[in-house]
Amino acid sequence: MKQERGDEIYGQNVVRELAKEGEKKDSVATGCTLKEDLVLKTFRLLVADLCQQFKGGHPGGAIGMAAIGVALWKYVMDYAPHTPDFVDRDRFVLSNGHTCLFQYCFLHLTGYKAMTLDQLKSYHSHRVDALCPGHPEIEHQGIEVTTGPLGQGIANAVGLAVASKNLAATFNKPDFDMIRGRIWCMVGDACLQEGVGLEAISFAGHMRLNNLTVIYDNNQVTCDGLVSLTNTEDVNMKMRACGWNVIDIPNGFFDVHNIVKALKSSKESDKPTFVNVHTIIGVGSAVAGDAVAHGAAFGADDVSNMKKVYGFLPEESFVISDEVREFFSDLPARGETLVQQWEERLKGYVHAYPEMGNDLKARLQGELPEKWETLIPHEFPNKPTASRASSGMVLNPLAKACKQFLVGTADLSPSVNMAWQGKVDFEPPELETGSYHGRYIHYGVREHAMAAISNGIAAYHPGMFIPVTSSFFMFYLYAAPAVRMGALQHLQVIHVATHDTIGMGEDGPTHQPIELAALYRAMPNLLYIRPGDSEETAGAWSVAISARHSSSIISTSRHTLPQLMPLTRRDGVSKGAYVLRQCSPTADLTIIGVGSELSLAVNVADALENQSALKVRIVSFPCQRLFEAQTVDYREEVLQRRAGVPAVVIEPYAANGWERYANAAVCMNTSRFGQSLPGPTAYKFFGFETALIARRIREYMTKIRSDSGLLKEFTEMTHASLDHTY
Amino acid sequence: MKQERGDEIYGQNVVRELAKEGEKKDSVATGCTLKEDLVLKTFRLLVADLCQQFKGGHPGGAIGMAAIGVALWKYVMDYAPHTPDFVDRDRFVLSNGHTCLFQYCFLHLTGYKAMTLDQLKSYHSHRVDALCPGHPEIEHQGIEVTTGPLGQGIANAVGLAVASKNLAATFNKPDFDMIRGRIWCMVGDACLQEGVGLEAISFAGHMRLNNLTVIYDNNQVTCDGLVSLTNTEDVNMKMRACGWNVIDIPNGFFDVHNIVKALKSSKESDKPTFVNVHTIIGVGSAVAGDAVAHGAAFGADDVSNMKKVYGFLPEESFVISDEVREFFSDLPARGETLVQQWEERLKGYVHAYPEMGNDLKARLQGELPEKWETLIPHEFPNKPTASRASSGMVLNPLAKACKQFLVGTADLSPSVNMAWQGKVDFEPPELETGSYHGRYIHYGVREHAMAAISNGIAAYHPGMFIPVTSSFFMFYLYAAPAVRMGALQHLQVIHVATHDTIGMGEDGPTHQPIELAALYRAMPNLLYIRPGDSEETAGAWSVAISARHSSSIISTSRHTLPQLMPLTRRDGVSKGAYVLRQCSPTADLTIIGVGSELSLAVNVADALENQSALKVRIVSFPCQRLFEAQTVDYREEVLQRRAGVPAVVIEPYAANGWERYANAAVCMNTSRFGQSLPGPTAYKFFGFETALIARRIREYMTKIRSDSGLLKEFTEMTHASLDHTY
Repeated sequence: MKQERGDEIYGQNVVRELAKEGEKKDSVATGCTLKEDLVLKTFRLLVADLCQQFKGGHPGGAIGMAAIGVALWKYVMDYAPHTPDFVDRDRFVLSNGHTCLFQYCFLHLTGYKAMTLDQLKSYHSHRVDALCPGHPEIEHQGIEVTTGPLGQGIANAVGLAVASKNLAATFNKPDFDMIRGRIWCMVGDACLQEGVGLEAISFAGHMRLNNLTVIYDNNQVTCDGLVSLTNTEDVNMKMRACGWNVIDIPNGFFDVHNIVKALKSSKESDKPTFVNVHTIIGVGSAVAGDAVAHGAAFGADDVSNMKKVYGFLPEESFVISDEVREFFSDLPARGETLVQQWEERLKGYVHAYPEMGNDLKARLQGELPEKWETLIPHEFPNKPTASRASSGMVLNPLAKACKQFLVGTADLSPSVNMAWQGKVDFEPPELETGSYHGRYIHYGVREHAMAAISNGIAAYHPGMFIPVTSSFFMFYLYAAPAVRMGALQHLQVIHVATHDTIGMGEDGPTHQPIELAALYRAMPNLLYIRPGDSEETAGAWSVAISARHSSSIISTSRHTLPQLMPLTRRDGVSKGAYVLRQCSPTADLTIIGVGSELSLAVNVADALENQSALKVRIVSFPCQRLFEAQTVDYREEVLQRRAGVPAVVIEPYAANGWERYANAAVCMNTSRFGQSLPGPTAYKFFGFETALIARRIREYMTKIRSDSGLLKEFTEMTHASLDHTY
Repeated sequence: MKQERGDEIYGQNVVRELAKEGEKKDSVATGCTLKEDLVLKTFRLLVADLCQQFKGGHPGGAIGMAAIGVALWKYVMDYAPHTPDFVDRDRFVLSNGHTCLFQYCFLHLTGYKAMTLDQLKSYHSHRVDALCPGHPEIEHQGIEVTTGPLGQGIANAVGLAVASKNLAATFNKPDFDMIRGRIWCMVGDACLQEGVGLEAISFAGHMRLNNLTVIYDNNQVTCDGLVSLTNTEDVNMKMRACGWNVIDIPNGFFDVHNIVKALKSSKESDKPTFVNVHTIIGVGSAVAGDAVAHGAAFGADDVSNMKKVYGFLPEESFVISDEVREFFSDLPARGETLVQQWEERLKGYVHAYPEMGNDLKARLQGELPEKWETLIPHEFPNKPTASRASSGMVLNPLAKACKQFLVGTADLSPSVNMAWQGKVDFEPPELETGSYHGRYIHYGVREHAMAAISNGIAAYHPGMFIPVTSSFFMFYLYAAPAVRMGALQHLQVIHVATHDTIGMGEDGPTHQPIELAALYRAMPNLLYIRPGDSEETAGAWSVAISARHSSSIISTSRHTLPQLMPLTRRDGVSKGAYVLRQCSPTADLTIIGVGSELSLAVNVADALENQSALKVRIVSFPCQRLFEAQTVDYREEVLQRRAGVPAVVIEPYAANGWERYANAAVCMNTSRFGQSLPGPTAYKFFGFETALIARRIREYMTKIRSDSGLLKEFTEMTHASLDHTY
């Protein structure tokens, strides 16, 4: 009974019977021609051989999906193997990235030049220059996005579909369909279980992204055994409830004909399409339909036996006959025809619509509008301003003017200030609240999908889009796996994180980040920037927009901050840290101020200078990663570590990571989280008060004068150590 | 049209009309008595006053949910206001935690002693001892779990339902229903959008947790406006597809009668129940049905006007009439009767089933079996063993013997070694693959829900359960928001994270953690422990099991590690770091080794001693947070920082955080992520080779001898700086 649940139309046992039959009888009758049958067998053995070679990898899924691959690459997708980056290609995303051999083998068979047979054989090898890593990677020909962590790929595919819809709505004319590329995405059981996948599915259904077809490799087997151990939902009904068009394919491990029919029909739907293809993991092997087919080579005997049954020679490996080569041989030329047709179309378009044509060409070059930086305000009102508001002041005119920006929020429009005047929402026109040319995206309360969809938007074509996401900083922990994937893929995505630190107040410890900055400061290729006032916020945006191959988080305050111009300098932000106020000739102490609490650092420095003989210099330190990229000399100029000036950083986060730049920290005690209190009271409760901090720093300075060993250790000054009472 | 989607039975406009009617005419006819109507009005005004008081907070949702609250606390739930921790109570979870006034006000009205009117008024105040933080917190009477980050609460509720099912299946007898408490959970639109909520819903449907009722405050309004901006799915159909029983309540903002009927009927379902209650946010106020009702006080005029319309005096605030008091007055006594009946039942149970009775009593005390530590192996095979395997050797006998353990995995049973011989799966008996008394949980590929559900299990009753989760370490980034919530609530949840560092190999950069440890080392009340061999793994488990009020992550290797006994010591782990090998009398250098690469550190130390005159001591450093809890003297004894011994840490992660303990790190260069290569090759590629590291450390030592200023900086030795070629 359990095997039939979740697979209600064709129980797994029934499918298995059909599988045996399908292998035996004339396969024309079962949905594929004899030649296609040969291709399927060749492909399956190729995958089995590639895993057997180094006795590792994931053969089962790829083998079960063979017929889907033939349908996609031979009959359905528009693409150009010899011009992999052809902009109007159909895009394919392998969300179940562990089945990467599926994609690698088809890239080889269809003529992608980089994917030689020799390269195919690099799968699981020790070759450092391999094009066949354990999961598909965006850097390589024919790979649209890096996948692997489950659920990311399907959300990326939704992002690609958003990008395509937006471009089409922006540039297409009745006589010129410049953008018609579709998105095809393979998923396994897991991508339909992962939250990020479910968020993206719900979003895509709402947005009626009918340029998206998701193909479900429904093999009902995961690592632990049958999917029915953990999931017995009616997936088709669930997809329909989410606004998807659903098609079932019973004998999906060989029925090329019906898969092609379904995929082609999906192009006509007014909804995104979900093709539920019933397959058998590792079909043809001795472990067909079993969990062990998932993540281990079949063993020499089994592979040998498969070859015998298939009419291949057991002693030969990696066999691709001329007949099979010939089957795929038309694809490069077909692709080049598409490319040429498109280029002709572009010429006509530029002629007919010169302005739009030039816009499109500029977008294709990944160019930002000339002098985009002039759109950033040169001055700001000299009054207390929340940096989330400053951030809006900086981005709004830019986003309004530059169509590259697709700006979204996870249901926090009133809080994040990202909506510019006259913005049009990205919505399906049928809903009458927006349009696909709109560039403001209501992602719903789906932070994780928001970031993953934005990765897909950024991956559409290099530099064509700059997606912006926004939410409270704490919720970027929900989004973190996708933020990571963006950084890993060198995608420019800018995350606007408001309500940083305990200053955000009453929402309390669940919303007050303490440890999250430590993650993002350690994350490769991610700029975590905390600006201290409007001027620094302008600098943060300049940096994030200039970083065309990195992801950024701009981390801002909920509450108003004093303006520190002219001490603050936007160009200082680009260096990660800079001297906010020098003292001559030599300093006793450096105070490091950061972001929303930068003015507190200035106040503390003032208090120290006024109340003691201490000479204090102040460093503003908005971004550790940018600072690490500076020269040794610059870093010493700023920090004076070697010159022996002790430094104290003030930041109400866990101090972890500041030890590199400071000898002591006024920070949060990581034995506890925050507290629900109004912002100013929260600061006070945790000891972030000028007079108190100044006193503790004076005490610290006295101590290190009598005990220089203290400088060899890192000192935390936290609320627990402060003798204040409430 | 858009307003009717997702709300297909009663469009928002229709509901609004009904609202006006309901307020006008005799409310008996509309589903609530006149007295109930008075209670609803009193409650709504109380909420409005509480927000108006400090001009902040979230009034709208709570006000719209008033009738649900009356149904729950007056008519449906079994609980005891004067014995809040009565073990067999029904448990209520407010997943839309920002509506906390909903819960606080009903706790006050129903007689929870701590929740005085004075305390109610502390909402959004500056009081540090307030019981009314911005989101409900587990520390306070009547609150089952801390909620706020959306989607967590519903997953926690699923965990509570799992715990209750497991206890009932374990302890109940035909003549003694010792455990019958149900779980009631309120959700808003957002909890049904968040991935973690969707994962938990799918899991609960599969598990047929019919002791769970989720009540949807369907007000169709979020921060950005109408839900239809972002979500137009058919939520009822989606819930049915996920295996839920669905009931619709049209006029849910006043129809107490039908809400009670629906909630009571949910007790009879063989599935979890979803009650879709159509409400109006901020009903009765001038902003009813509008997004601005969500997160701001209504304003004095509006509140005053509400009072007039309701027949209250505008100049009076916080009015609770005797009639309303009387309405709830029976509840404490009714609760105490339940408590007494249960205690009588317990006596009978202990008498009839002495062994089970004692077991139950021990569980209620949160006691672990005496001498549980003796179940941990005293010795391990002295052969190379993956620490994920060691971890299995430690936990399997313990989990088998101690019914406190509910051990689960996110579909990685073959990889994480958590399944003990003879384990029974936690599954609905109907599926015939397990039973509710089973204690091995297949969570599916739902890492985030796994951790959030485990928090719910741990929150059921202090110490009654120790939930264990397991997955690859990298996927604990998916689970991070829930791991955080566990630590924040002082819940004992143990996370088994295998495949740590680049040593995990071929799966590549998407699966190789670089920066993740920095998060967990900075997270309050979370023990991130990296044991170096079987002996240290035993120590890690001892620590994690002994830490009854902290969450832990035990971080282990995919690949085999040499055994370092007798150098390694399990009791050393409990101190966070310890001297693995001393050298006398004075050392030139401390090498810090960590976890899966501890043996590499030993090899490097050996190489340095053999090839140079350097005297090297070795410190094993499995857990930074445990080390921070040690005395100053112990820390100096281990690290000899003040004594001036330079230290180099070896760990293939981002170095962030190690600056506190070391002068230099052999680490990953955070300008990039990992690489898909077989584990040993990956180590080599990134420079984690004994000879190479030894050479670089020798060079470093030479440098610091001629330039002591170098010790004032932190030095990274990464693959980028290594002159090896591949």
